[in-house]
Amino acid sequence: MTDDARDVKNASRLEDITPPAPVAQWVGDSETGFLRLLDQSLLPEETLYVDCRDATAVWESIRRLAVRGAPAIGVAAAYGMVLSAQGVSEDDFLTELNSAGRYLISSRPTAVNLEWAVNRQMARAEGSIDATPGEIRRVLLEEARAIHSEDAAMCLAIGRSAAPLIERSGGVLTHCNAGALATGGIGTATAGMYVAHALGHVFTVYCDETRPLLQGSRLTAWELNRAGIDAVVITDNMSAQVMREGRVDMVITGADRIAANGDAANKIGTYGLAILARHHGIPFYVAAPYSTFDLDMPAGDAIPIEQRGAEEITAGFGRRTAPRDIKTYNPAFDVTPASLITAIITDRGVIDPVNIDNVREIAAT
Amino acid sequence: MTDDARDVKNASRLEDITPPAPVAQWVGDSETGFLRLLDQSLLPEETLYVDCRDATAVWESIRRLAVRGAPAIGVAAAYGMVLSAQGVSEDDFLTELNSAGRYLISSRPTAVNLEWAVNRQMARAEGSIDATPGEIRRVLLEEARAIHSEDAAMCLAIGRSAAPLIERSGGVLTHCNAGALATGGIGTATAGMYVAHALGHVFTVYCDETRPLLQGSRLTAWELNRAGIDAVVITDNMSAQVMREGRVDMVITGADRIAANGDAANKIGTYGLAILARHHGIPFYVAAPYSTFDLDMPAGDAIPIEQRGAEEITAGFGRRTAPRDIKTYNPAFDVTPASLITAIITDRGVIDPVNIDNVREIAAT
Repeated sequence: MTDDARDVKNASRLEDITPPAPVAQWVGDSETGFLRLLDQSLLPEETLYVDCRDATAVWESIRRLAVRGAPAIGVAAAYGMVLSAQGVSEDDFLTELNSAGRYLISSRPTAVNLEWAVNRQMARAEGSIDATPGEIRRVLLEEARAIHSEDAAMCLAIGRSAAPLIERSGGVLTHCNAGALATGGIGTATAGMYVAHALGHVFTVYCDETRPLLQGSRLTAWELNRAGIDAVVITDNMSAQVMREGRVDMVITGADRIAANGDAANKIGTYGLAILARHHGIPFYVAAPYSTFDLDMPAGDAIPIEQRGAEEITAGFGRRTAPRDIKTYNPAFDVTPASLITAIITDRGVIDPVNIDNVREIAAT
Repeated sequence: MTDDARDVKNASRLEDITPPAPVAQWVGDSETGFLRLLDQSLLPEETLYVDCRDATAVWESIRRLAVRGAPAIGVAAAYGMVLSAQGVSEDDFLTELNSAGRYLISSRPTAVNLEWAVNRQMARAEGSIDATPGEIRRVLLEEARAIHSEDAAMCLAIGRSAAPLIERSGGVLTHCNAGALATGGIGTATAGMYVAHALGHVFTVYCDETRPLLQGSRLTAWELNRAGIDAVVITDNMSAQVMREGRVDMVITGADRIAANGDAANKIGTYGLAILARHHGIPFYVAAPYSTFDLDMPAGDAIPIEQRGAEEITAGFGRRTAPRDIKTYNPAFDVTPASLITAIITDRGVIDPVNIDNVREIAAT
């Protein structure tokens, strides 16, 4: 065991690592309390919080991306169910609570964690048959806090495995935002950075700006900078040069979905980075919770790639940057084949090398 | 010889290919005429021309990038010397003309073609010792037109060599703008596209938007679209996915400087594209006039890489897209090693394979 690995294993202070900003916090008790969300749509220019006092406010916050990232949306929805339980009639409590849950899910229908969190809360409510609405609200707040802290624990587990990979005085390159802002904890791709920073490693993180939506420059750079980690923004097409100059020792990204063979879908641009890393002999890591694995999908080529509209490319940030009538092609994701991934770092352990047997061992248990 | 190659060699109609928009035109005679420039700083939103009636107006147009691209700047400066010759006193004509030339060069000191064109015009003026100022103005306009048409001929020569490489019904990927807008003709990287289009090839050009200054989406997409060539804008990080999907059969870019061994400096992102093309088995071409070669530079690692300021990355779209106090890294160019370049297409022939002997054969003659 290396010194770093021993540090990570033993350090009790790691439990105290907090995200650089609270993505979601419950304020008050289950009867009159409310959900305070960091409004990520205003970052990096303004750091403002929005107080959600009913399910509609949560629905709108998810819809307009004030809160984003699958785990963070799940946490927000879990608290949103407490607000739903404050707002429905006592007479027809469970039926109305269920309707409120379906309504919350409709805010972003493809977000897996959203539906999962709402269903988990409904099961908890339905499991409390003899309880009063007030008691159920208390139980739901307790459960929301459990979902939140389980998510934070998942991030920390990934961070413990990833931190020893980050060299002291080294450089890391990341893409998009698989950060604290996307989770209830210290993020997935960023988790190792926060842990390594807490252990005293000094390193630089090159943040791809991540066109078209610029999550890297708007969000990842913001949160790392706020945490005191040395962050440098580059445009996506600078990654190869940064690698060639020897500035980075590793690349680490998140994943949206991972197939049974280890092929990983993630934000567009990830696949190209993996090729560039391989060309330069730099390890390429994916960090993701075990819930990201879809073992029913044998390989990545079956993962559907969402195509998005032209405006994100032609007029992304207030100014038109392409001719009005121009065609665009805008795939939101790409798939990195397992053969280009050095290891997948999960909350249940590290998959290395990445193959169907090692994936099954971690993800199916 | 293939049918396409024979088409290119014989087609007299190729002489009639005109750029999609005139970058620089002289209006009127040498005594009272003026230079009309396409104001590229307004593209793609507005297609406006600016009339330059004195050297100051040309200086400002070059400075504020209304005209950009080394060959186009050279052409503008050549006409600018005619305007200078209209404005200086008849008594001290050559001395004042020379001062005006130095002034023009100061608009963008690192633009090689700018200094070259001014010096060529001065040599022409100084070679007309017994001529009157009026006669010298006529000579200078003649010389400016020669510089302009030589540049157009250079582009066409590249286009004739490059066009047969563009498959009918195929796809091409390009980066930045080595287009008609950067030259006095049909561009360098784009020249083969305009010729292939004139020959009836139907193909799609994927234009990398080219962060940070977006020359691909603002300029290349605009000029190809205007010429009726099917152009599709993608963000830089989509190139790998576009290649993986089999959408492109070749990549072609320009070059800012090429070393004696064939290593080529070009807009940041080019080097990464060359790696991605190699990974996908797609040929990667560089198109450049022989004047781009710097045979005093043995290899690309000696080419200095300009570093630019943070604002281009953090506030490039009119809105701030990164934290105010964030660090950036902003290399304007990168160097693609000769080993990743399938061939270099010049106005004097094709260098294939790219090595020191083949470069010398083309560039030193």
